[in-house]
Amino acid sequence: MNSMFSDVLNRLQPYTPGEQLNDKRYIKLNTNENPYPPSKNTLDAIRANTGESLRLYPDPSCKELTAALAEKHSVGLDMIFVSNGSDELLAFAFNAFFAQKTVSFPKITYSFYPVYCKLYDVAADIMDMDEDYSIDKEAMSRNSNPLIIANPNAPTGELLSDTYICSLLEKNKERLILVDEAYMDFAEQKSMADYVNKYENLLVVRTFSKSYCLAGMRIGYAIGNKMLINALNTIKNCFNSYPIDTLAQKSALAAIKDQKYYDNINKKVKATRDKTASALREIGCNVLPSQSNFLFVKFPGFDSYTIYTKFKDLGILIRQWDYIHDYVRISVGTDSDMDTLFLIAKEIMQK
Amino acid sequence: MNSMFSDVLNRLQPYTPGEQLNDKRYIKLNTNENPYPPSKNTLDAIRANTGESLRLYPDPSCKELTAALAEKHSVGLDMIFVSNGSDELLAFAFNAFFAQKTVSFPKITYSFYPVYCKLYDVAADIMDMDEDYSIDKEAMSRNSNPLIIANPNAPTGELLSDTYICSLLEKNKERLILVDEAYMDFAEQKSMADYVNKYENLLVVRTFSKSYCLAGMRIGYAIGNKMLINALNTIKNCFNSYPIDTLAQKSALAAIKDQKYYDNINKKVKATRDKTASALREIGCNVLPSQSNFLFVKFPGFDSYTIYTKFKDLGILIRQWDYIHDYVRISVGTDSDMDTLFLIAKEIMQK
Repeated sequence: MNSMFSDVLNRLQPYTPGEQLNDKRYIKLNTNENPYPPSKNTLDAIRANTGESLRLYPDPSCKELTAALAEKHSVGLDMIFVSNGSDELLAFAFNAFFAQKTVSFPKITYSFYPVYCKLYDVAADIMDMDEDYSIDKEAMSRNSNPLIIANPNAPTGELLSDTYICSLLEKNKERLILVDEAYMDFAEQKSMADYVNKYENLLVVRTFSKSYCLAGMRIGYAIGNKMLINALNTIKNCFNSYPIDTLAQKSALAAIKDQKYYDNINKKVKATRDKTASALREIGCNVLPSQSNFLFVKFPGFDSYTIYTKFKDLGILIRQWDYIHDYVRISVGTDSDMDTLFLIAKEIMQK
Repeated sequence: MNSMFSDVLNRLQPYTPGEQLNDKRYIKLNTNENPYPPSKNTLDAIRANTGESLRLYPDPSCKELTAALAEKHSVGLDMIFVSNGSDELLAFAFNAFFAQKTVSFPKITYSFYPVYCKLYDVAADIMDMDEDYSIDKEAMSRNSNPLIIANPNAPTGELLSDTYICSLLEKNKERLILVDEAYMDFAEQKSMADYVNKYENLLVVRTFSKSYCLAGMRIGYAIGNKMLINALNTIKNCFNSYPIDTLAQKSALAAIKDQKYYDNINKKVKATRDKTASALREIGCNVLPSQSNFLFVKFPGFDSYTIYTKFKDLGILIRQWDYIHDYVRISVGTDSDMDTLFLIAKEIMQK
């Protein structure tokens, strides 16, 4: 039976996403979902498009959504690429740009990157980090390999400045830099999307899963010069003509048009984040500065698995990795979610 | 700038899907969509799930839908794999089973297969067909390469019997045979899914896009033994943790539970197909026997591009390929769609 499988399979090590338990008891702070619902207008748009037209294939080019995104970022229509979540987009990018080459990324970052490396036969040049999990900026310019930066970084929450990223882009204009901005709407800094007209070697990846509260609908997109977008389209059109269904397209379109609602809830998320970080520090936790919708937290005297288990037993799911022994990642929920979290944290630290 | 791209890109030749023109004037008979809408219960299920929960990631394992499909096909839960349309599934299958090997398929079949070959570095062993576009059954057993069969075949509509496919499965139990049953619900024959418990070398691929009227929602699935399903899961989990959004999962689940509605409309489609085929034959067209929801038709005296253009000018979109000079493919619409089509066909043939 083994003869039925390809050699590719043998080298793969799948990504493990955060648990999606249906058990309603849990406060779910493990996958960085937005604690607030999509706006009424967003949901109404889905309902309004739930009809006979679902018998038809969706628009394979996501024309309307692409136009709205191009307008949002003040770029040309040929500088936007829409995908089934940003994970699909990252997979396409690894295939289009990195396959059979070497790509650099920090040691602790989005753990799907090394998985894509195996899938597309990419060598990983992994940059060590300082003991406080901060990105080693010297390492980032030590060679000319294409570079992938999650900014803000996950799971640490660190934000690199746009000035610094521009200096890297400037230094070697043949070096592709992919900036994964899944959490950028929670940072006090402008998106690197503002620089795509200036740098041909910049690709910015974003998602509707976090700041637009649409993780359930699976929409991601990239902004970059048209040669890069073309390459992504070529891969996509060799893979699946219609990856984004009609209702996903309509939901994202409605969400962009309802920007005020989302700005408002994201402001709340940031306030809750900062309040929670201060409170946790006061009881002795180490909390890294975060510009995203999660906190990277160490409970001195406890390993990360123990902390994960204690919270789970008391009804809160947080994220823990076997290869990170000290810190856990806690998504920012509502104020009430975080009050409950804080009570448990206090109890842990008092023992 | 060329140094930014991978070598993979250079060898790719994207698939071109049928046109999705928004222009309402057209009767759309070019992408084999079902002419009838999804059932009321299916649409209600989407609306009922359009709410706050969309802020959460969808179930990555599609547990509920998998259970319903396992029940429908009387197989174990570990014998079902759900995907973002069957195209994504085919892509995963090419990667999991055929990468860097050779796969056989007929010369005229689903034109995405050769595209996947390029994407995953697969050598194509293309089997010639008889002049009437019928599948060369001798060629199918001339070697032991893995085999992909669209059954019924697209765009020809030919159906191979289950007995014949079983004989191939029996002959070499190490030879993987992937049967793409996108159109099987329009045929008078049982699905090869009924044989997956018997043959470990059989993978059956199906879709909700045609017989379940849900092309707009993107749901496909595979049925096969657990080793094959495992391999697909490994690829998927290295690619995108959550390819099927919440509403897509819910729509498919509701559709399965509303089987009577879909059986009824598919019966209508088959009746319309047979009536149209007879009528076209009567006015001198060659129409291949079809067990699917489309007809493969030749208008003697005209090349396929001329026919495509004539229909388009008069408001009907049909499918034409540059490498098929004589035949066009016409999807089966409503009776009224086909009456209009017939009037134009008659006018063409009378000239």
